[in-house]
Amino acid sequence: MREDAIGVFDSGVGGLTVAREIMNQLPNEKIVYFGDTARVPYGSKSKDTIISFSRQIARFLQTKNVKAIVIACNTASAFALETLKKECDVPVIDVIAPGARAAANATKNNKIGIIGTIGTVNSGIYSQYLREKKPEALVYAKACPLFVPLVEENWLYDSVTIEIAERYLSELKGYGVDSLVLGCTHYPLLRHTIQKVMGEQVELVNPAYETALTLKRVLEEKELNQLEWKDNHHEFYVSDGAEQFRSFANSILPCNVVETNVVNIEMYDRG
Amino acid sequence: MREDAIGVFDSGVGGLTVAREIMNQLPNEKIVYFGDTARVPYGSKSKDTIISFSRQIARFLQTKNVKAIVIACNTASAFALETLKKECDVPVIDVIAPGARAAANATKNNKIGIIGTIGTVNSGIYSQYLREKKPEALVYAKACPLFVPLVEENWLYDSVTIEIAERYLSELKGYGVDSLVLGCTHYPLLRHTIQKVMGEQVELVNPAYETALTLKRVLEEKELNQLEWKDNHHEFYVSDGAEQFRSFANSILPCNVVETNVVNIEMYDRG
Repeated sequence: MREDAIGVFDSGVGGLTVAREIMNQLPNEKIVYFGDTARVPYGSKSKDTIISFSRQIARFLQTKNVKAIVIACNTASAFALETLKKECDVPVIDVIAPGARAAANATKNNKIGIIGTIGTVNSGIYSQYLREKKPEALVYAKACPLFVPLVEENWLYDSVTIEIAERYLSELKGYGVDSLVLGCTHYPLLRHTIQKVMGEQVELVNPAYETALTLKRVLEEKELNQLEWKDNHHEFYVSDGAEQFRSFANSILPCNVVETNVVNIEMYDRG
Repeated sequence: MREDAIGVFDSGVGGLTVAREIMNQLPNEKIVYFGDTARVPYGSKSKDTIISFSRQIARFLQTKNVKAIVIACNTASAFALETLKKECDVPVIDVIAPGARAAANATKNNKIGIIGTIGTVNSGIYSQYLREKKPEALVYAKACPLFVPLVEENWLYDSVTIEIAERYLSELKGYGVDSLVLGCTHYPLLRHTIQKVMGEQVELVNPAYETALTLKRVLEEKELNQLEWKDNHHEFYVSDGAEQFRSFANSILPCNVVETNVVNIEMYDRG
């Protein structure tokens, strides 16, 4: 089991920011990544649809004998974590609990902001976790639907992006939040713009980083961690656009992505 | 056959602008609409994926005994028209040929602009049609990926939208195009902003309007048009988010959408 890979999935390329943190913090581990590029984005879709997509992907990853599954997508974490935990016989780790925990630890004035897709924000999942972890905290959530397409346009430091960020974030700034969860895997790429708009005193929480830490702890506790380094060949699968994915992956990962394979994910509808 | 409905499909709500034109220009006809809201958007996906999605939808529509199919989506028109024409035994009408024809007729200086999603623009389909229709015309195409999310934010007349439109359109303006195809079904909703940025001398071509005209002609030629008006109950189906769809449909259609049903569209994978 220690030799087995870690399955990581996302609606598309965003989850590569989580894969990157895992590669940095757990260099001995092999990753099997699936990006659902044919059905991206998840943020605007319903709970039932996200559960059904996530189930197909978990079934696919289990055909690769993974020893753990990381849901590297906030929307899928919000909607499908309970289902996957119930149906998979390996540990399932989401990005929300680690992000919420870090935000609860970071705040000093007990005012926490959350930004994410419409799906993540409307699910209320971060607020729910935070109410349990830190009942005294006030939590303010705001959906920022233009952030993902702005990242995809690569307008990361653009005046238009700053203007849009100012509009989206002014309310959270007004409430005086001192920690802000980047509750969508694309958002760390807008980190500098968001920090500039919010001010240096606000601590930005990156759930990707926290998730890799949690994964490390879980693998060690269950004695599933790979003990020795070997030259792992991570595997990458998508449901569409393999070449575009590969080129993006190579631009952000610390390893060379040699090939990406397309999977007909709808085929994994029955277990 | 004259009594049968017209099948109309799109990746989501955008095709409702086409359904609206059909309702206005062919008031006797009944529409069965399918919006693929679980897999929206199509604009960034590959040809193979779009063909496979469109095939499933055409199969679904044919279970409703439609007498014609309208592909009310530019990306699906660009990628799947030939396949559906081959595989369906009813007439299949796309949005691109009618839009290209209108642009060819509208231009006086033979400089035509096309705006659309990355998929539509990269397919080169409008340029291809226009090269056949009007070989002497110069065609300039530009992808505007932020326009759809801006429409979905309802920032139709916003200063940010004007700024982004100015950036996207400055090149086309520089080339001096005198007709501009709104090559994505969401774009007619940005018509005022686009007209303002391009100037009043530029004619905006709305393929939705032209498509309804083409459908009318095809039905008459094939003696498939419904001759008398009756109180049609249009039917609406989606792959996700029925309630959200219904509320949007009611905001733009001239009829009352009473119910919208969710279809598991992946089930229509085999004929």
